[in-house]
Amino acid sequence: MDVVARLTRALPGKVETTPDVLERYRRDRSGRVADGVPLAVVRATSVDDVQTACRIASATGTPLVSRGAGTGLAGGGIAGAGEIVLSTTGMTRVLEISPANQYAVVEPGILNGDLNRRLQEHGLWWPPDPASKDISTVGGNIAMNAGGLLCAKYGVTREAVLALKVVLADGRLISLGHKSVKGVTGYDLCALMIGSEGTLGVIVECTLKLRPVVTGTVVTIGAFFDSVELAATAAAGITAAGLQPAIMEILDRRTLECVSRFTGSDLISRGDSYFLVQCDGPASVQESSSVLDIITSAGGTAEQTTDPAESERLVDVRRQGFPALEAMGTMLVEDVAVPRENMVAVFRKIAELEGKYALMIPTACHAGDGNLHPSFVFQGDTVPEEVWHAAEELFTFVLTLGGTLSGEHGIGVLKRRWLRAELGDDQFDIQRQIKAVFDPQNILNRGKVFEP
Amino acid sequence: MDVVARLTRALPGKVETTPDVLERYRRDRSGRVADGVPLAVVRATSVDDVQTACRIASATGTPLVSRGAGTGLAGGGIAGAGEIVLSTTGMTRVLEISPANQYAVVEPGILNGDLNRRLQEHGLWWPPDPASKDISTVGGNIAMNAGGLLCAKYGVTREAVLALKVVLADGRLISLGHKSVKGVTGYDLCALMIGSEGTLGVIVECTLKLRPVVTGTVVTIGAFFDSVELAATAAAGITAAGLQPAIMEILDRRTLECVSRFTGSDLISRGDSYFLVQCDGPASVQESSSVLDIITSAGGTAEQTTDPAESERLVDVRRQGFPALEAMGTMLVEDVAVPRENMVAVFRKIAELEGKYALMIPTACHAGDGNLHPSFVFQGDTVPEEVWHAAEELFTFVLTLGGTLSGEHGIGVLKRRWLRAELGDDQFDIQRQIKAVFDPQNILNRGKVFEP
Ligand SMILES: Cc1cc2nc3c(=O)[nH]c(=O)nc-3n(C[C@H](O)[C@H](O)[C@H](O)COP(=O)(O)OP(=O)(O)OC[C@H]3O[C@@H](n4cnc5c(N)ncnc54)[C@H](O)[C@@H]3O)c2cc1C
Ligand SMILES: Cc1cc2nc3c(=O)[nH]c(=O)nc-3n(C[C@H](O)[C@H](O)[C@H](O)COP(=O)(O)OP(=O)(O)OC[C@H]3O[C@@H](n4cnc5c(N)ncnc54)[C@H](O)[C@@H]3O)c2cc1C
Repeated sequence: MDVVARLTRALPGKVETTPDVLERYRRDRSGRVADGVPLAVVRATSVDDVQTACRIASATGTPLVSRGAGTGLAGGGIAGAGEIVLSTTGMTRVLEISPANQYAVVEPGILNGDLNRRLQEHGLWWPPDPASKDISTVGGNIAMNAGGLLCAKYGVTREAVLALKVVLADGRLISLGHKSVKGVTGYDLCALMIGSEGTLGVIVECTLKLRPVVTGTVVTIGAFFDSVELAATAAAGITAAGLQPAIMEILDRRTLECVSRFTGSDLISRGDSYFLVQCDGPASVQESSSVLDIITSAGGTAEQTTDPAESERLVDVRRQGFPALEAMGTMLVEDVAVPRENMVAVFRKIAELEGKYALMIPTACHAGDGNLHPSFVFQGDTVPEEVWHAAEELFTFVLTLGGTLSGEHGIGVLKRRWLRAELGDDQFDIQRQIKAVFDPQNILNRGKVFEP
Repeated sequence: MDVVARLTRALPGKVETTPDVLERYRRDRSGRVADGVPLAVVRATSVDDVQTACRIASATGTPLVSRGAGTGLAGGGIAGAGEIVLSTTGMTRVLEISPANQYAVVEPGILNGDLNRRLQEHGLWWPPDPASKDISTVGGNIAMNAGGLLCAKYGVTREAVLALKVVLADGRLISLGHKSVKGVTGYDLCALMIGSEGTLGVIVECTLKLRPVVTGTVVTIGAFFDSVELAATAAAGITAAGLQPAIMEILDRRTLECVSRFTGSDLISRGDSYFLVQCDGPASVQESSSVLDIITSAGGTAEQTTDPAESERLVDVRRQGFPALEAMGTMLVEDVAVPRENMVAVFRKIAELEGKYALMIPTACHAGDGNLHPSFVFQGDTVPEEVWHAAEELFTFVLTLGGTLSGEHGIGVLKRRWLRAELGDDQFDIQRQIKAVFDPQNILNRGKVFEP
């Protein structure tokens, strides 16, 4: 019996093979498209289903791609010829919310936004907030160690997970971490699993570390600067002053142009760079006034508000960045991160690359943690060679600054060719050997992260 | 040439073999004593020295024990017959302090307290604060993923490390993590190294994530309760109310008795349990008044102060706990952690075990994160059988509550016999295989964490 027949028999009603359904799984939001079409999509609704699918994949040596909502920006969730897609979007139950212990136990397929709406009723909150939170799954956030606007202050996903249940390639179920907030028994495999991009196992249950909802006045500041370097300088100055805004984002001139066009607004007439800051918590008012001083002395023109609707408007400028760029063509979204004082240098480098390679590289930046998203926009499915060259030059530059080629979007297929350069040969080999410990047949997300 | 001769020749002046020096390395602060005496102590002062020692250990198949200040409570740093001790206490340089990027790069042997005094001049702070901070090394803190009084609010060591340089068993040097605050390239081996207790490599350089010094009034509350259960209820209530004090500690009646005797004070006449709370940050005054309300309605009698000297006095009651118990004999210090609302149940279990096994088990508790330290005090070097039985019964109980057998002290030799019970066979095997990836000859801290 072939693998699809075995899956269909073992998981009746949960295996799809309709061509136009399969077609959708060749892509995620990275712009990458897999070669060929996957064999089948398994829609798991229980841990058992996942174990069954993995056992069959293992027994037949068939590659299996874990898939959440498909919003990934690195091509980690795309599936092609000869591969099984294991979709977790049917596993959306909230198994427990414990206000006393500030944790929640959930299935991996629940959307981040849906979960947070449930938690709010209990005065609780799961901090990871990728801009995609309303369309991405908790399991996908964990598999990617997602960051977001708030993570400079409230931490990335790794800091917000207590325990995981994981199905191994061969179908065995293991439990990593603890329900207690601390624990140091043996190696921290829970931390290892976070950000492993579906290559070590399928995450089937997540115990999440929650926080009480932040109280106090939320103050939002939207500022315009004459150049992105000035905005980056202001941002670095805010961090260096020991202030810790919840949000600190920069858009460069090209991104502002795209957003202006996309939203039909006149933003671009107001400056060459947009700087968004939000302060929350008990000291927000005091903190925002210090922030405003730094912005003003760095040459920015700022408006400040505590009105929720006005605040939404200021934040929305940032949020429109991604769709505005997407509307212009295919994108190679880069995701470099550097020590914060080097942001200015990276912006300069990007300007230099635009000239050298005759490219447009609109860039948005999580300025609170030195994470920049230069987006190479082009037409068609194939990344033009000069884009790869420019991207490579940027990576190399960033590594010399002690930075990384991916702050939050991961490696997937998009950046695997540079992974070795960042890790070095010795670490690269250790990572591959760790992969082999979990998945000796190399069936989970084969060819992702590590080049085949 | 034998291994000691090779070491002495390669590292002139850095290898000690004097019997009374060697004797000291058979112990740490766990009360465990290694069988036999180590071969030699290598006092490394550079990365090169560490590489040389590892190369020789590897070439000769000689076990090597990394050693910081020797304050460990799990016997991870003790060395016996046929083993080399690699001491990092001579590697104390601060290589860089970057206020702009809020990181510091240091050698592993610097004492946590010494480093923090240096950082304070820059208005910065490395949050990990084990009670041993003035006598333990940064490398040891990282190797153990140390917690401390402040970690419920400010995170454990894992949250405060950006990057590590590590010498592998065979002498190769690898770099893990990044100097940027975010990064998701491949598996998070930096997180894996934190808490690995010297079994995966020797940490030789640490890039630490710093915070600005906390400002605002520090409010300290010392309260007495009629029972430890009432104190634990108050603590759980404070967490459940969404408050987040910097410190929240409980001492039980037996610990209070010991501290009273040790310090010659009358603490024990004031109640059956001591509850220490400290609030800091911009909302401390407001927060402490909510805390006080909860304490009072839970039946506590509290004093509150903002005076630094008075505050020191209240905190010191907690700090005297460990030396006061140590003065009474040898200790088996347990370190269980549970979801916070289960603290009361653990205290009850401890009382039950005291009766059942006719033991005294004074217990201190990091109540902000559900981490309890029941200390089994006895005379002599050998743990009495009934102590092991009681400890085992406690571990088993804690696991049923979703907890762990070690919140912060680690496994070492002390708890290795229970590791498999907590991890399960499958995860246990994976962990051993990961150990073999890093250290195929099993020379680093052989027999630690995993039973030989
Ligand atoms: C508009 C937009 C904004 C975005 N903003 C951000 C941002 O601010 N920060 C950020 O970090 N990312 C951002 N992203 C990227 C993306 O949303 C995140 O990476 C997200 O975490 C992916 O979740 P998903 O459910 O869509 O996963 P998918 O795309 O389906 O999968 C992503 C990867 O995770 C693996 N995976 C998924 N589920 C599991 C599971 N249960 N077990 C094991 N592996 C699994 C897949 O194999 C794949 O490798 C954005 C994307 C878009 C389109
Ligand atoms: C009074 C007292 C209070 C304490 N309070 C706390 C507390 O509040 N919280 C807490 O978590 N712990 C506490 N401890 C335990 C202990 O101080 C910590 O575990 C500390 O981190 C150990 O540091 P060290 O330098 O003494 O390491 P050591 O005891 O020398 O070694 C500990 C372990 O780390 C390994 N190691 C050391 N250096 C390196 C290196 N450079 N590379 C690789 N491996 C290395 C050793 O092999 C060993 O396994 C306390 C101990 C005492 C005596």
